[in-house]
Amino acid sequence: MSRSFSVNPIGVVKKTDDAARIEIFDEYADGLLGLEGFSHMMVFYWFDQNDTPEKRKTLQVHPRKDPRNPLTGVFATHSPLRPNPIALTRCKIVAITGNIIEIEEIDAYDGSPVIDIKCYVPASVEDKDVRQPDWIKK
Amino acid sequence: MSRSFSVNPIGVVKKTDDAARIEIFDEYADGLLGLEGFSHMMVFYWFDQNDTPEKRKTLQVHPRKDPRNPLTGVFATHSPLRPNPIALTRCKIVAITGNIIEIEEIDAYDGSPVIDIKCYVPASVEDKDVRQPDWIKK
Repeated sequence: MSRSFSVNPIGVVKKTDDAARIEIFDEYADGLLGLEGFSHMMVFYWFDQNDTPEKRKTLQVHPRKDPRNPLTGVFATHSPLRPNPIALTRCKIVAITGNIIEIEEIDAYDGSPVIDIKCYVPASVEDKDVRQPDWIKK
Repeated sequence: MSRSFSVNPIGVVKKTDDAARIEIFDEYADGLLGLEGFSHMMVFYWFDQNDTPEKRKTLQVHPRKDPRNPLTGVFATHSPLRPNPIALTRCKIVAITGNIIEIEEIDAYDGSPVIDIKCYVPASVEDKDVRQPDWIKK
């Protein structure tokens, strides 16, 4: 088998009842320069609550934990159960102050380790060219 | 500092002059069930040729290696130089046969380690609500 790679968190998700933000660790704050020019960003975080050997071995799930959805390979879903528990979500940027990114909301737990951020550039795929299974549309 | 996480490749990018495919390692092939229902997928791969301590410390770049573009934090770009060299790209699925995903094209080197695949679901952000800096539009 091929070698493994090491991922070091660059920050952390902080959530309260009425606010959400991402705190970038000081040593990585210089990487935020210019992010304020974007309305949205892609946030990569780690499903750390699902990072167990057993959950990493789960290869098929019923999407959205709904048994009425067909058994589906995790690579055809966004399930937190997957060999490498990487989460990807798009966030709207509200404000950036120093190493703090205020965001509108995020579908992550408070305390989730953030492992990367990339600027959000809209997809160039026309909707008419996109095909998805029925369980997605429900 | 927080702990680090381990990423294990699930497959590899294979490219020739006239074809591109992703080979999923046999032990993960069950994770592909249902992916054929999607026209596109998100492929996460590792910028393994940029995984050096020095490149991981690079926090600001001139986007697209063009000195006319403003010095920009790597988190506001898709640069391969970043603390965790994770690449994300969308691919059109041509066919899936066993553990082989034939794709239309991919902006990755032959041999790049694939670390995750997720189904592609179009963004729900309206174009009019997206803001980007000028260097993106060139």
